[in-house]
Amino acid sequence: MSAHDAIDVIRAKRDGVELTGDQIRWVIGAYTAGQVPDEQMSALLMSVFFRGMTPAELAAWTQAMIDSGVRKDLSSLGRPTADKHSTGGVGDKTTLPLAPLVAACGVAVPQLSGRGLGHTGGTLDKLEAIPGWRAALTEDKYLAQLRDVGAVVCAAGNDLAPADKLLYALRDVTGTVESIPLIASSIMSKKIAEGADALVLDVKTGSGAFMKDVESSRELARTMVGLGEAAGVRTVALVTAMDRPLGRSAGNAVEVAESLEVLAGGGPADLVELTLALAREMLTGAGSDADPADVLASGRAMDSWEAMIRAQGGDPDAPLPQPTERHVVTAPATGTLTRLDAFSLGVAAWRLGAGRARKEDPVSAAAGVVWHATVGEQVTAGQPLLELQTDDASRIERALQSLEGAVGVDTDDVPLPLVVDRITA
Amino acid sequence: MSAHDAIDVIRAKRDGVELTGDQIRWVIGAYTAGQVPDEQMSALLMSVFFRGMTPAELAAWTQAMIDSGVRKDLSSLGRPTADKHSTGGVGDKTTLPLAPLVAACGVAVPQLSGRGLGHTGGTLDKLEAIPGWRAALTEDKYLAQLRDVGAVVCAAGNDLAPADKLLYALRDVTGTVESIPLIASSIMSKKIAEGADALVLDVKTGSGAFMKDVESSRELARTMVGLGEAAGVRTVALVTAMDRPLGRSAGNAVEVAESLEVLAGGGPADLVELTLALAREMLTGAGSDADPADVLASGRAMDSWEAMIRAQGGDPDAPLPQPTERHVVTAPATGTLTRLDAFSLGVAAWRLGAGRARKEDPVSAAAGVVWHATVGEQVTAGQPLLELQTDDASRIERALQSLEGAVGVDTDDVPLPLVVDRITA
Repeated sequence: MSAHDAIDVIRAKRDGVELTGDQIRWVIGAYTAGQVPDEQMSALLMSVFFRGMTPAELAAWTQAMIDSGVRKDLSSLGRPTADKHSTGGVGDKTTLPLAPLVAACGVAVPQLSGRGLGHTGGTLDKLEAIPGWRAALTEDKYLAQLRDVGAVVCAAGNDLAPADKLLYALRDVTGTVESIPLIASSIMSKKIAEGADALVLDVKTGSGAFMKDVESSRELARTMVGLGEAAGVRTVALVTAMDRPLGRSAGNAVEVAESLEVLAGGGPADLVELTLALAREMLTGAGSDADPADVLASGRAMDSWEAMIRAQGGDPDAPLPQPTERHVVTAPATGTLTRLDAFSLGVAAWRLGAGRARKEDPVSAAAGVVWHATVGEQVTAGQPLLELQTDDASRIERALQSLEGAVGVDTDDVPLPLVVDRITA
Repeated sequence: MSAHDAIDVIRAKRDGVELTGDQIRWVIGAYTAGQVPDEQMSALLMSVFFRGMTPAELAAWTQAMIDSGVRKDLSSLGRPTADKHSTGGVGDKTTLPLAPLVAACGVAVPQLSGRGLGHTGGTLDKLEAIPGWRAALTEDKYLAQLRDVGAVVCAAGNDLAPADKLLYALRDVTGTVESIPLIASSIMSKKIAEGADALVLDVKTGSGAFMKDVESSRELARTMVGLGEAAGVRTVALVTAMDRPLGRSAGNAVEVAESLEVLAGGGPADLVELTLALAREMLTGAGSDADPADVLASGRAMDSWEAMIRAQGGDPDAPLPQPTERHVVTAPATGTLTRLDAFSLGVAAWRLGAGRARKEDPVSAAAGVVWHATVGEQVTAGQPLLELQTDDASRIERALQSLEGAVGVDTDDVPLPLVVDRITA
């Protein structure tokens, strides 16, 4: 086929005609090879935005993205493998306690992760708050750590679905990010290529999530579960609450500290509950009947954490970075906290320095927000409710602006259950 | 605004939000200046394909395209001006008799024209069959000819709606040609910039036209009439039949010959009727009450033709190119010719060498198709019905293939009336 055929592919999709597997393989391959130009791919992406994709089209599209790179084979580990992917939320640090916990249960966790952009944090950014910890690993070191420690969280290399990297950059500037099939294929191409036997998807729903409403979140979850199963990966999705943030903190070092509380047997109830729920799904998917609650209580998950951090150069005993500035926001009334808006708190943490606006920006390890109560809990007028943390006092005013209307006491808001739905094939 | 704002414009259009005049002026200007890249504009064009444009958006879009170049001022001529634009059809040579006829009636015709692509011919290609005739004119010579002869048909310069040139090239490779607002703004930006007082649009409908059905043709006509009137140009559209070809020939030299018959007082009835109908609309629009039938009968239109051809280097008395090969197709039955498919005949003429597939291809002046009867006329089995003309005998077989099913005698096809509708503001 030639660049001229790209017009036929665009027109077919535009007019609602199902694309063939050959057309999809060709257009993804030729785009990745630079033979189909950006302006044709962006017209195709916008047509997909309007027309969607059939399950067959989406499976072929995702497979073509996987085939643009390598699909890793972890069978030589001689151990079952499982991974988790979250669509991103405020205060969502579950990977940090979850990966060592599942590893301590005997299932290896090969997580290739990304950095945060916008108001939701990135796992690598959080781990980089630990002195010495490095996100980049060679392939050999990655496999050795997976064998020796059983858990790796590191930066994805360029060999994993390179088509997705190109397509994502194009979608970002052409208004074609918000498309369920394109989101699903982007996530699943990378996760399938990672090579885990089982995959658990944490699809966040609510103001702080990419998907604001439960039905869209369910649709994304169903779409991704279908893609995972079609590619031979046992896949389950939990749709979980992101109307309020998860746990009690959003930031980088502050989320590491909270994760350590969980690994030590404490931590906020919602974070512990979600970590255990995700761990059970990962273990079941990988064929293990270990009980993660027992393993967590035994301290072995903390041992795995320390080994995982040390293996990537980090010092698990080093003090975490602390902010120079703290600003307290008090509860506006006495009663039940019924609203703690996830998006507003995420934007506040971002404006305090915890997140980045452009992918080349640095983040502050010490910046973030801590809240002393979450939805459903009693608060007293005037008690400290939020603490804004930053290295730069000038950032506090704009962070406070983002918090207007974020807190509600005895309002008629109805918080979502922590786990809204469980989606299987 | 910056390139980042292009994303906001794309997302607004994508989501069905009406764009402001400022957004449209900025995006067209920035695209023309190379500040908005092709991939963003193609995503915007595809969003327009799906969402359409409101009348206010379309007027702003068209004005922005006009403002990317110059809008000519012909007031110094001291004479009313009128032009005609056809959306393109098979055998549509009406510009050739029409321009000198209207000029002979005292209204100047400043037609800046294009070349043909695909199965419909281009006016410049037809005129270039005349030995010596040149399509390119300097601005000074163009104005002098308009003053002295009253009619110019020449190639449009780069100063006329340059944004359209860029956008058309992008639409051509991104599957965004078939959008009524984009078609209307492309045509009308150039025609309004041309500077005529009045404009008549010949919107073809049927198999040989870009718009295959009457309702789409009416919608395109209404859209263009609205744009013309909004820009202060008196504009009328005729929706005319292109289920069968116009006149008795399709090609280049052969269409010039047929036009000369009309100017000499003869020629096929449908071509004469349409030429007079369009002439009346142009004259009325320009405020003239001259009777074009009288002027045609007087021979003054032929005088104007000869002056127009000579002014551009052509020799109106020189013999026209003749084909070296002729192939006759006979009538399949005796009865009334009810089908003479315009698209099939157009493709045949194109394959014989009359048209081009890519804009850099040459065309053959002598190639084309002549038919000895048109729809509604009686034919006798075995009589010569079509004559294929070419310089290259090897082209005949593929031309014949395109004619399969093109001719029907006593079928239940119902030909369209020549003038299907007249659309005014």
